[in-house]
Amino acid sequence: MLITFEGIDGAGKSTQIRKLRKLLIGEHIDSITLREPGGTEVAEKVRQILLESRHEISPIGELLLFSACRAELVQQVILPAIDNGTTVILDRFFDSTIAYQGYGREIDQIMLQTVITLSTFSLQPDITFYLDISPENALMRKFSEKSLPIAFDESELDRMERSGLDFFRKVRRGYLDIIHKNERRFVLLDALDDPQIIHKRIIASLKERFPVFSGIKTR
Amino acid sequence: MLITFEGIDGAGKSTQIRKLRKLLIGEHIDSITLREPGGTEVAEKVRQILLESRHEISPIGELLLFSACRAELVQQVILPAIDNGTTVILDRFFDSTIAYQGYGREIDQIMLQTVITLSTFSLQPDITFYLDISPENALMRKFSEKSLPIAFDESELDRMERSGLDFFRKVRRGYLDIIHKNERRFVLLDALDDPQIIHKRIIASLKERFPVFSGIKTR
Repeated sequence: MLITFEGIDGAGKSTQIRKLRKLLIGEHIDSITLREPGGTEVAEKVRQILLESRHEISPIGELLLFSACRAELVQQVILPAIDNGTTVILDRFFDSTIAYQGYGREIDQIMLQTVITLSTFSLQPDITFYLDISPENALMRKFSEKSLPIAFDESELDRMERSGLDFFRKVRRGYLDIIHKNERRFVLLDALDDPQIIHKRIIASLKERFPVFSGIKTR
Repeated sequence: MLITFEGIDGAGKSTQIRKLRKLLIGEHIDSITLREPGGTEVAEKVRQILLESRHEISPIGELLLFSACRAELVQQVILPAIDNGTTVILDRFFDSTIAYQGYGREIDQIMLQTVITLSTFSLQPDITFYLDISPENALMRKFSEKSLPIAFDESELDRMERSGLDFFRKVRRGYLDIIHKNERRFVLLDALDDPQIIHKRIIASLKERFPVFSGIKTR
């Protein structure tokens, strides 16, 4: 079982993943949570390069680095876990690539699909929760977490953040388009709702779709 | 003008590149030499991960990391240099990917081609010098450079070298196959010949094919 979470940074993915993970532990359902890019030694090193570099990385370079991390994670961690009956909860998967690199950076979608097929070994999520939020609200939320005033200090932003609001608007439109084309796999959630309400909707979707979760008590 | 050198490690690419570069400087022909993977800050960091990691990297991960380095190098350095009239001498390019990842690691050739197209922005070398050597002779030469006895100490080998002789035999067969399919672009050289003789052959090929080099005096 592979559960993925998608959405732009600040949508609240981490909060929801933490709540879901805690619930599954309480229910004695084996699970692991992983984030992209990361989860293997090589991928964590590449993550540092991607997020911390003050230097420009080309959109193609970025795509290929993300995809390398993904290939490592899928082959070394995700596929063995799934084979072992463990529920894998993934913070971002290939939908992020389509939204960020395809819609955001405008890389050719057919080439993108080949790279995705290579890097995922054709693995598909069983269900994907998309937390929808406007880029403006996402940034506001991120900054309030960091206890900063609302007036942005550009130097506090990492490379991804600096790419700017216009970019994230394209990414959000991308996500909504992907969902439209993959309605059965996606659950669309409003990221501005109360986190506990979002959590309950996530549990309800899992119970409804997958027998393994049907015994979970909703509190 | 893009000149590439190919061959397994130990074939003597560096020696020939050094000789060529020295000659071009003497002839006042603008040139730069670059190596793959590397040549940009991001690519040099990824190079470290690729060559030094004691951990297994999957063939797909390896392909994507190499390709990310290439995309950075082509976009940031090679294309601007060529536009500027500089002769670019490249230690390895996409033929290495086809030989190592395609023939060596047996990654699907069609997917490989898509990744190559993405990462090279469809750039092709004007001429490619392939230095042919058997993997056994290449390793012997590498070890004698390091002043080690012929009995190999496995721990002295980097990750690439540890992949073993069988791998390099497949890579060499791959190179010979690529040359067969791209005869006009390639110059096949015997890496066991005297380095000065190889150098003269390289100059002769350049003079014969490209007017810009026709004035070079052969000493």
